Amino acid sequence: MGNIIYLDNSSTTKPCEKAVENINIALEKLWGNPSSLHLLGVQAEIPVTEARESVAKLLSCRADEVYFTSCGTESNNTAVFGVCSSRKKRGNRIVTTAIEHPSVLEAFRKMENEGFEVIYLKPDKNGVVSAADIENAVNSSTILVSIMLVNNETGAIQPIKAAADAIKKSGAPALLHCDAVQGFGKMPINVNSLGVDLLSVSGHKIHGPKGIGALYMKKGVTLPSLLVGGGQEKGMRSGTESVPLIMGLAGAIDELGNINDNLKKAKDLWLYAKDKLIATGLVAINSSREALPYILNISVEGYRSEPLLHFLESKGIYVSSGSACAKGEGSYVLKEMGLSSHLVDSALRLSFSRFTEKAEIDALCEALTQATQRLRRVK
Amino acid sequence: MGNIIYLDNSSTTKPCEKAVENINIALEKLWGNPSSLHLLGVQAEIPVTEARESVAKLLSCRADEVYFTSCGTESNNTAVFGVCSSRKKRGNRIVTTAIEHPSVLEAFRKMENEGFEVIYLKPDKNGVVSAADIENAVNSSTILVSIMLVNNETGAIQPIKAAADAIKKSGAPALLHCDAVQGFGKMPINVNSLGVDLLSVSGHKIHGPKGIGALYMKKGVTLPSLLVGGGQEKGMRSGTESVPLIMGLAGAIDELGNINDNLKKAKDLWLYAKDKLIATGLVAINSSREALPYILNISVEGYRSEPLLHFLESKGIYVSSGSACAKGEGSYVLKEMGLSSHLVDSALRLSFSRFTEKAEIDALCEALTQATQRLRRVK
Repeated sequence: MGNIIYLDNSSTTKPCEKAVENINIALEKLWGNPSSLHLLGVQAEIPVTEARESVAKLLSCRADEVYFTSCGTESNNTAVFGVCSSRKKRGNRIVTTAIEHPSVLEAFRKMENEGFEVIYLKPDKNGVVSAADIENAVNSSTILVSIMLVNNETGAIQPIKAAADAIKKSGAPALLHCDAVQGFGKMPINVNSLGVDLLSVSGHKIHGPKGIGALYMKKGVTLPSLLVGGGQEKGMRSGTESVPLIMGLAGAIDELGNINDNLKKAKDLWLYAKDKLIATGLVAINSSREALPYILNISVEGYRSEPLLHFLESKGIYVSSGSACAKGEGSYVLKEMGLSSHLVDSALRLSFSRFTEKAEIDALCEALTQATQRLRRVK
Repeated sequence: MGNIIYLDNSSTTKPCEKAVENINIALEKLWGNPSSLHLLGVQAEIPVTEARESVAKLLSCRADEVYFTSCGTESNNTAVFGVCSSRKKRGNRIVTTAIEHPSVLEAFRKMENEGFEVIYLKPDKNGVVSAADIENAVNSSTILVSIMLVNNETGAIQPIKAAADAIKKSGAPALLHCDAVQGFGKMPINVNSLGVDLLSVSGHKIHGPKGIGALYMKKGVTLPSLLVGGGQEKGMRSGTESVPLIMGLAGAIDELGNINDNLKKAKDLWLYAKDKLIATGLVAINSSREALPYILNISVEGYRSEPLLHFLESKGIYVSSGSACAKGEGSYVLKEMGLSSHLVDSALRLSFSRFTEKAEIDALCEALTQATQRLRRVK
């Protein structure tokens, strides 16, 4: 990382060596069109097949259940719009949470405008929606439940299995979609244990390139595709496959190492950061102890997020106020958790990668102390 | 190109040096998320802005009229679905040609299934739809006309301006969309002279990477976006921008050189190829003399396309039977032009780049002669 301290890994990550290497192989050698009948096409199709197997392994699913898309947003949109359009005759209720990523939330709002009854489940103070609320929300006319695996602002892990159980119990004709962008490659994911029908992932949050995502679609589930044309991805996603990015994603997966070991290291770092930040006497911790330990949401009470962010930036430390996708606005996620506006307005999201070190946390704490000395306190 | 002879540049192209270089800069240095408020985000946004200006220059439009997408297919789908959904109250007729790329044709078929009246204009024997037919097709209830600039199988250039005139004359509330994927970077394009409201382009046909496209949308035109979420691309295309691919596209544009000079060289090569192929006595020419000289469609009568393609492949020569997006099926484009099934079944598409040399055409002609000696002739 050179001499910058990058604590904004939930926004995006630096592509890892193997990702860069793979992308260059695709650009220089495997640049054929996978749809071409000749050798260059066939050669370009092989790494796409291999990458599909890599993603499948990480999700404990079959390779033919993985469809490449251009990003997590496209995966999420494909799932939400696809289920709504194909099941609208079977029911009018769709269920999600109030703390989803905008690519799910905006898709639900669009469906709401088209006449669907939408239930937005509220989180508790830890940022988690409850199994009981999910069960109450799912009725026999529910056709879709979409709940994220890990919240992108707080790291709160949501009860996906409870949603699967609720659907089963209610007998609803609902499919279960899970936006797993923030959990993918960072925690063990087994689509069968979770009980999901659809699950979205992205490459650039795990040191892969920007512009590649995938959608898990359970064998037997059929959805209309969002993009139509040449019929690539078994008709689910037309458009020439971006072999470089697909290979880049595979490279990032290759380099992940052992997810559980990484998770243990992350938890250790997360606890260290939490204690150290609390010890500054300046910080409130907004993430719960049960959060995925790659995200730590804090508030520096009395100081607004944006000046704080820019002060840290001047010290070469990069963090986020809310998510990158909610450029500059007060976090709706923290508001939904019932945090006071003081806490919301002074929130910072720290997000780690497997490369983050304790010394970087030390530097952050020091810089935050300096910030509170230099910046003007607000009431 | 090493020792291969690649005559399938309308399927895809080898990324050029500057494209590869730019992609690596993005991966190694400018890997921030353009939506991030901090310096890494700002730094990553700059090349995106510059790339937008590069595309705009090539289309003679304003930079703020260019929206990045993940591919030509997404651009085409965004245009067709966007216009149909936003203008359906103003009319029910949409007009296109029978020889569009599948990403337009399938989009129109979907709209036809949803109740739109679709007119599919037929081409003449040269593969061109007539201005008169366009004028007859456009009536006062027409809301969309979508005609490609250059046909991807024959190179036939379509009368876009005539479509603009027809819309004006009829007083129809129609927007004019043009799939310019095969013309972009290969012929001068001026969106104002063409009179289009929407125009699609792609990166990987001009030695840029796969996975990047753009949509020109005339100032004042508003469409619902296909992807919703974080609101990137001024709300027109949510999803984290693929900075590497956007920079790759800009690199490819940088390296294009003078389009008119390239075109002149291509015309010279095209005429050379045509004469040389005719001189073999084996070949019928399916492309017209007025075609864009980067595509030459031929038939080797008595020999089926696929064995021919594989024979050429064995000699290190790569061509296409039809387009890469119609994997293995007889060309609907040639059928619509009224070609006999003999000609359709024996068709090959040769597609050139600015790097193609006459010696490669000589090798092709020799290999075709060998092919007709080795392969079994069909009735």
